Amino acid sequence: MTDELLPQRGRYTYERNGQAIYERSFATIRCEADLQRFTAEEAHVVVRMIHGCGMVELAQHVRCAPTFAHAARHALRQGAAILCDAEMVERGVTRRRLPANNPVICTLKNDATAPKAVQLGTTRSAAAVQAWLPHLAGSLVVIGNAPTALFHLLELLDAGAPAPAAIIGVPVGFVGAAESKQALVEHPRQVPWLIVDGRLGGSAMAASAVNALSSDDT
Amino acid sequence: MTDELLPQRGRYTYERNGQAIYERSFATIRCEADLQRFTAEEAHVVVRMIHGCGMVELAQHVRCAPTFAHAARHALRQGAAILCDAEMVERGVTRRRLPANNPVICTLKNDATAPKAVQLGTTRSAAAVQAWLPHLAGSLVVIGNAPTALFHLLELLDAGAPAPAAIIGVPVGFVGAAESKQALVEHPRQVPWLIVDGRLGGSAMAASAVNALSSDDT
Repeated sequence: MTDELLPQRGRYTYERNGQAIYERSFATIRCEADLQRFTAEEAHVVVRMIHGCGMVELAQHVRCAPTFAHAARHALRQGAAILCDAEMVERGVTRRRLPANNPVICTLKNDATAPKAVQLGTTRSAAAVQAWLPHLAGSLVVIGNAPTALFHLLELLDAGAPAPAAIIGVPVGFVGAAESKQALVEHPRQVPWLIVDGRLGGSAMAASAVNALSSDDT
Repeated sequence: MTDELLPQRGRYTYERNGQAIYERSFATIRCEADLQRFTAEEAHVVVRMIHGCGMVELAQHVRCAPTFAHAARHALRQGAAILCDAEMVERGVTRRRLPANNPVICTLKNDATAPKAVQLGTTRSAAAVQAWLPHLAGSLVVIGNAPTALFHLLELLDAGAPAPAAIIGVPVGFVGAAESKQALVEHPRQVPWLIVDGRLGGSAMAASAVNALSSDDT
């Protein structure tokens, strides 16, 4: 409509160009964050994770297996499914960056998940991982919310489940988050992993990591 | 199916009860976070925001107008629309907690948004705010991602747009986030506000704040 109210400019001066905002953001992060211990491929991921949370100090807390970045990027280019523990993670994956129109799957709200949680005596987030089984081989697993989902996945791997290509393990919080991430690092099957130590994590960091791995673009 | 692979338990001991996880999490946060300067109603919000990001130090960075918590809770009970700048925020709002089946709206992917951004010479996140106009009066605005969305909203208020009931202003990042939040605090129309100072913010904090305001349940 032509009589739509328009913003009254004048009070504020700010950058309105999306690409310029990205470029200045990434330049600031690369200037302030200590990225020395990462390869270029890993740093690309860490920079985007910092962008998603606003904390350059995050760099100190990110750890990954030396095989992680290559394994995850290769899997995505081969069309790997992206298995997400939370809808916020699923929503945060930028579809147009994906190299092979990869399926992005979150099974948390599947009809079977709530009864499965009761049956298995666990959380809905953990029960949702059961529904990943047909998609698990060669997938990229992305856990940005629930420690129980990560523990459940490791227990499925202990039971002989097919291995994902790589696991982004960044659940957040105060009960089980630090422990589940350490368990991933130490797991005998050594699926290539990326974690954020301790309590820090979340859906934004998780989705940011996927978005970095999807494309070389900043 | 009956022959589904089941997790092999034994390697890990962890809390599998969702309610117990919540209770232990909130107890830890209330033990460690410095919440003294908040009212009980405000602390309820801050605790959930900390829960969403894993950082008890967040408490130092949250500020709100004295009118905020009451205004936002009252608006939600009256059926206020919840206007979100990002799909991750929209996904993070727990529908079953909402007191009045409130509409949760994100206009970022509306067909009109991308052309509107070109027309107005701004970001898509800012242009998406134009589509909030019919819903703005008495709404709860929730900005968890884009500083430009918050600046654009303030410019619409300068142009005489109807006032929301309250604004959660927690955009994240390195370009404009701190400035847009300070502008919200100082805006002459003084819509009740909640912010996180500086670069910190994000969709999880934003959605957590809405979820806390929606219900008295932990």
